[in-house]
Amino acid sequence: MLNFSFYNPTNIVFGEGQLQELDNLVPKDAKVLITYGGGSAKKTGLLDRVNAELAKSGRTVVEFGGIPANPKFEVLMDAIKIVRDEQIDFILAVGGGSVIDGTKFIALAAPAKAYEGREKELMHFGFTPVPVDSAVPFGTVLTLPATGSEMNNGAVISDGEDKLPVFSTHTFPKFSILDPKITFTLPKTQVANGVVDTFIHTIEQYLTYPVEGRFQDRTAEGILQTLIEIGETTVNEPENYDARANLVWCSTMALNGLIGAGVPQDWTTHMIGHELTALTGLDHAKTLAVMQLANWKVRRTEKREKLIQYAERVWDIREGDDDARIDQAIAKTEEFFNCIGMATRLSDYEIGPDIVDRVVAGLEKHGMTKLSERGDVTPEISRKMLETAL
Amino acid sequence: MLNFSFYNPTNIVFGEGQLQELDNLVPKDAKVLITYGGGSAKKTGLLDRVNAELAKSGRTVVEFGGIPANPKFEVLMDAIKIVRDEQIDFILAVGGGSVIDGTKFIALAAPAKAYEGREKELMHFGFTPVPVDSAVPFGTVLTLPATGSEMNNGAVISDGEDKLPVFSTHTFPKFSILDPKITFTLPKTQVANGVVDTFIHTIEQYLTYPVEGRFQDRTAEGILQTLIEIGETTVNEPENYDARANLVWCSTMALNGLIGAGVPQDWTTHMIGHELTALTGLDHAKTLAVMQLANWKVRRTEKREKLIQYAERVWDIREGDDDARIDQAIAKTEEFFNCIGMATRLSDYEIGPDIVDRVVAGLEKHGMTKLSERGDVTPEISRKMLETAL
Repeated sequence: MLNFSFYNPTNIVFGEGQLQELDNLVPKDAKVLITYGGGSAKKTGLLDRVNAELAKSGRTVVEFGGIPANPKFEVLMDAIKIVRDEQIDFILAVGGGSVIDGTKFIALAAPAKAYEGREKELMHFGFTPVPVDSAVPFGTVLTLPATGSEMNNGAVISDGEDKLPVFSTHTFPKFSILDPKITFTLPKTQVANGVVDTFIHTIEQYLTYPVEGRFQDRTAEGILQTLIEIGETTVNEPENYDARANLVWCSTMALNGLIGAGVPQDWTTHMIGHELTALTGLDHAKTLAVMQLANWKVRRTEKREKLIQYAERVWDIREGDDDARIDQAIAKTEEFFNCIGMATRLSDYEIGPDIVDRVVAGLEKHGMTKLSERGDVTPEISRKMLETAL
Repeated sequence: MLNFSFYNPTNIVFGEGQLQELDNLVPKDAKVLITYGGGSAKKTGLLDRVNAELAKSGRTVVEFGGIPANPKFEVLMDAIKIVRDEQIDFILAVGGGSVIDGTKFIALAAPAKAYEGREKELMHFGFTPVPVDSAVPFGTVLTLPATGSEMNNGAVISDGEDKLPVFSTHTFPKFSILDPKITFTLPKTQVANGVVDTFIHTIEQYLTYPVEGRFQDRTAEGILQTLIEIGETTVNEPENYDARANLVWCSTMALNGLIGAGVPQDWTTHMIGHELTALTGLDHAKTLAVMQLANWKVRRTEKREKLIQYAERVWDIREGDDDARIDQAIAKTEEFFNCIGMATRLSDYEIGPDIVDRVVAGLEKHGMTKLSERGDVTPEISRKMLETAL
């Protein structure tokens, strides 16, 4: 097992009806900014319910809607101005990963006096924590199980064609309310995205090479098995509480630091996926489904031991030689994605061969030239993966 | 899945050589009390190493040794007096579960002005959080993987023949250093105790009845499988780093709230075990190994579905009818305990039938008359378990 630190102070409040805990969770005397996205939180009545809970202790509330998928720096700057002008002292994100990611950046940038007027610089520390002393405290009400942002301190912010990671020790949500029922109104395609996003988050921290991280491996396999068990049901029966509850909890656990602590990680699929989304607008999860399979096909030698373990433990494949088992596991994974309505080829999205050069150029521009668990995925290997994914 | 809250802010610093992080983790200007147990921390040189790390920033350090297994109220009161007299502002527990549990009580009671002179009352809130506003901040350097106390907010304190639970939102360690190498010097019997303690902590949160807590079930099963895989090795090869690292991490994860969130729990075995320890001095883990098997034998109907799941998933038992599988799973568990040197009968410890009445009287005295995941284990059923365990 590799050395590691694990720290995650987010208070999770999980289950049906937990929205009523808001009045206890948000400081009574706070002036609150509610952040949300494209309007579904308003349409479903969730925003009204949130406001009603906050009103129980007579809090002053300001709203900021319109945070888009792949939250854009310019939009977030408008919210940052509100936090400063209105002296907001608590932010409540009501939404999915994009709203929560955007809120992390707002919370981080608004009080950062040293960066006032040049907030964009806060987006350029990569995977190094942003050097600020504090952030505006914030909580979340999750509406879309997918990114895990509700229980971690990372965000991905878009600036034109750049998708940039932002981290800080101050950007853990104080709390996150996870009520599976709140997610019942999601369209099927977004639920399928959530299943695949959770699946690939788990894979990126699991399918590398063995280091005797037995708890981590078993827990990752448990998430994958659960997603396979409940995937079709939660996509096709949106009001099946048990299936959805399992998706919600797995999506949170897949990216809160737990399964990645003490084991190698391979974020190649995500990094290529980010470039694809920036260039084509294709949903994050859809890029992942396509690129993960291509990643395995190109790097099956490097990932051999873990692919065999994955075949046996996750898919119960016990027949055939090692190569046959690996082939079956990859095929089973593709079938699973397809059965929840997720395509697995770039051509399924009418993305042609001309994308390859553009993505490779993007990776080079963003310094993504030594990807994978061993830092051995060069732009040429990324190119092979993209060609395999066409 | 049941509704739940999950909050755990302890910073885990895991791996070989992590003791050197102490100087970063303990506030530089703190006056520190180091708490420890019977002297092995001193003998092995660990205490000197801890002192050397704290000295890097010139901290004033006071030591308090002699916290016994099953930490006693009277002993802890001596430390509480030191914290008050010396105006200690950080406590560092160097030890296993007893030292850490004792430290939690010290940290809680020392600043509790309202309870000064009647500190014993702090031990009588049962599973309700103790109503205090703060505690002295503390960290831990773990020497014995077993209780999970290094990443939770609970303690068990002894007062004569009473073993009493103490909880508070303020008694999470600020950090815990988990270096598997620090545990290499433990005697075999203590390592075996740690394996069984971790195993039973997991069982008490897993082997109840199904509620669609799929992540929780799979994660619990992963801990059990890991313990079965590494149990003999870590007992017999104390310097096998990988085996010990997996024991250390599993023992922490087994009782930090994770696998118990959103599922029923059955602490019957622990409650009967506590009475046994208080009356006979038998090690906590040894009481658990004996009583868990008896619990299953007496309550196999109530636990039927989960026993079948346990047989299949943890032991890969796929042959025979349901009852045969359950029998095999219980037998396999007993074999596993035995193979790491853990006896599974009270008579193995020369404890005879006269203990039954005394334990049942203890359970009644402590209000433990409706135990189990359904509250249906009466003193009469506890009696049956004890008789089965003879």
